[in-house]
Amino acid sequence: MQKLRVHGFGISLDGYSAGPNQSLDHPLGVGGTGLMEWFFPTRTFQKMHNLEPRDTVGLQSVPDHLFGQEGGETGIDDDFAARGFENIGAWIIGRNMFGPIRGAWLNDDWKGWWGDNPVFHCDVFVLTHYTRPPLTMKGGTTFHFLTDGIETALQRARTAAKEKDVRLGGGTATVRAYLRAGLVDQLHLAQSPVLLGSGESLFTGLDLISLGYRCVERVPSSRTTHLVLARS
Amino acid sequence: MQKLRVHGFGISLDGYSAGPNQSLDHPLGVGGTGLMEWFFPTRTFQKMHNLEPRDTVGLQSVPDHLFGQEGGETGIDDDFAARGFENIGAWIIGRNMFGPIRGAWLNDDWKGWWGDNPVFHCDVFVLTHYTRPPLTMKGGTTFHFLTDGIETALQRARTAAKEKDVRLGGGTATVRAYLRAGLVDQLHLAQSPVLLGSGESLFTGLDLISLGYRCVERVPSSRTTHLVLARS
Repeated sequence: MQKLRVHGFGISLDGYSAGPNQSLDHPLGVGGTGLMEWFFPTRTFQKMHNLEPRDTVGLQSVPDHLFGQEGGETGIDDDFAARGFENIGAWIIGRNMFGPIRGAWLNDDWKGWWGDNPVFHCDVFVLTHYTRPPLTMKGGTTFHFLTDGIETALQRARTAAKEKDVRLGGGTATVRAYLRAGLVDQLHLAQSPVLLGSGESLFTGLDLISLGYRCVERVPSSRTTHLVLARS
Repeated sequence: MQKLRVHGFGISLDGYSAGPNQSLDHPLGVGGTGLMEWFFPTRTFQKMHNLEPRDTVGLQSVPDHLFGQEGGETGIDDDFAARGFENIGAWIIGRNMFGPIRGAWLNDDWKGWWGDNPVFHCDVFVLTHYTRPPLTMKGGTTFHFLTDGIETALQRARTAAKEKDVRLGGGTATVRAYLRAGLVDQLHLAQSPVLLGSGESLFTGLDLISLGYRCVERVPSSRTTHLVLARS
């Protein structure tokens, strides 16, 4: 069975998956980068971003010392990071994960946060209200801009993924929409010991128990607590 | 400096501190007992409830095997449980923690969940909208029913506590009111790997960052993640 999987979705201890005031300088909102501090030192992240790391990820707020580490760290955090890239044949991401632009596309200049050779290496379906031609990048990544809803996007992604699973990226609104529709098979959260105070709440108004989800795995590391939710 | 401290406040991974539909059978709401499963096996809990445990705590939904353990468990969970009773000279609790009755007191029959000899052994100030004479129990516990707001209750409790600290119990609304007023000095949360889906949310609409709180301690145990928030 082809699954729809969310991985490495960082949340604060007060339940926010992004801080307030998202912008080009703060793609995860103010303070939001703190939710991913378990991810940056991992071997998986360092391998993905070993060339010109600032340009390829666009995370200007990531501290210097987290880049260029020799090989990156292995262990619990890296195991969970690596799982997120296993057996993935296509991605679905929200417009807000693709970039900071809101409303109509002014032109085709913005090509995502990830540079010329994005980390996906497969078809990526971007949910948007504004049409735009597909964008083929180096390394096998093609961004498709879809305007006809989450179910159609999932069908397209499933077909593109062939036998493999589909990974669902952020932002929060996108993950919430797929959860509310009961379409997410597995949700890996990394709950960090930081407060954000405001921002985008993953849980507010979303009754995950009624939607059939349970916590099926919990592994604390020194930096975060990994939690896997699945439908029972 | 006399502190106002919250201890052992259980929350679910989706941020609820009590489940839906609180009642005599479900003092923490449906599913809410799951938030306290780290606490029941501890030596601290077992010592407090070593006589007729069902009567003294009123938690009919607590599984049998969690009572009558020889001495209870020591370790991380017990260390945090024990902290909550160190240097405490008075308590403040909400009406909903005192009992399941809502609205006016019909009579003085309800004397709390804790039997004739409650676990407090000091003055306990109960926040309510309905006056009632003080209630003196065995073992040094006196319940005082206060109707003139959280700040007056804190003054009364501080005086009663003399040099010691004041412990703030639940329920959620009470803790939120004191947090919003910036009066809580220390908040120990135990975040359990369970979903509740709905119920009373500790965080919704409460910007703990703006209120000056930070997470100053995080200790995962096998059952829960202990988090201590304090004002910086």
